[in-house]
Amino acid sequence: MAAAVADGIELKPSAPAEDIENGAPRSVPSNGAGTVGEDGGAVVTSVVRRWKREDLLEKSTLLLRALGCLFSLVSLLVMASNKHGDWKDFDRYEEYRYVLAIAILAFLYSMAQVVRQVQRFNTGRDPVPKRFSGILDFAGDQGIAYLLISSLSAAIPLTNRMRDGADNMFTDASSASISMSFFAFIALALSALISGYKLSKQTYI
Amino acid sequence: MAAAVADGIELKPSAPAEDIENGAPRSVPSNGAGTVGEDGGAVVTSVVRRWKREDLLEKSTLLLRALGCLFSLVSLLVMASNKHGDWKDFDRYEEYRYVLAIAILAFLYSMAQVVRQVQRFNTGRDPVPKRFSGILDFAGDQGIAYLLISSLSAAIPLTNRMRDGADNMFTDASSASISMSFFAFIALALSALISGYKLSKQTYI
Repeated sequence: MAAAVADGIELKPSAPAEDIENGAPRSVPSNGAGTVGEDGGAVVTSVVRRWKREDLLEKSTLLLRALGCLFSLVSLLVMASNKHGDWKDFDRYEEYRYVLAIAILAFLYSMAQVVRQVQRFNTGRDPVPKRFSGILDFAGDQGIAYLLISSLSAAIPLTNRMRDGADNMFTDASSASISMSFFAFIALALSALISGYKLSKQTYI
Repeated sequence: MAAAVADGIELKPSAPAEDIENGAPRSVPSNGAGTVGEDGGAVVTSVVRRWKREDLLEKSTLLLRALGCLFSLVSLLVMASNKHGDWKDFDRYEEYRYVLAIAILAFLYSMAQVVRQVQRFNTGRDPVPKRFSGILDFAGDQGIAYLLISSLSAAIPLTNRMRDGADNMFTDASSASISMSFFAFIALALSALISGYKLSKQTYI
């Protein structure tokens, strides 16, 4: 290899013969190649930065939806097990039934999103067409966030009024379930922010 | 002018003398100038299209906030005048006081935004620095939308339960106020969508 380089240079009339003869590995003039490398490097850096940003957004939504899933699961379990007989049954009150229904909906939605995101991360395939996935993510997050704030707001005054009279297991469990719904709301509202941002930056390739 | 052009051309050794002598207005070769004109036209069209789109978004938010302002004004007036003595006073119920408070807040917010937008349209100046205006618009719209859905959700179960027993002026006025809050919520939620889109497309020049 070194001999071939030396031969190539020897063909030129202005090549300094003594430099070639001492057999030291000569550096090939790499001016043009260096520039191409730097340009390529800048492009690669920029693309990698974009990937990293998208990856960060992807991970944030995954984390937020996993939190939303967890909190709504706790909310629905606490509410569904909130039966202590007589007036202390959650299903005698439409507000608590509403909280339970929306917690189930939020749990199913965020569970499905987490499964879909993990599957896409592993296999690279997405059951939803790329064109619709942005709007679906955003509409889903935002819609569930509105439903959650609505359901917990409906249940707060009733709980408040009950606690004026009696402070027992039933009212405590109701407040716990409402708080968990509130945390799920916070997680999904933040996720809606991020998926709205992703939707607006979406490129239609 | 024509003579000066003729003089300029006569200096060149290869200029055809007969063409200059017949004094006809010669067309200057306009190849480069034509290309520049077309490019400029494309740029102008693109900029104008962008202005039009921004103008449309601006007008949509103005319209939506004006609607939000109107609906929350009706909501607060109906709720504030909802006093028929004894148990039929809105201020005996925390839910209705909450609806009234949030309707006042939504009215003041959307009123201020409409005034600011109209003033910016007329004078071109904005009391809020350009850097903060996008995030302020979005956070305001989205926050007020969440508060509105929360307040009306809180008031619905109480009204529902009252109407099971009695259906009178008081419960009718409460439902009317809640409906108006709902329309204000729709308007501000749509406005939050648009201002979120504008925020993500914001250029920091």
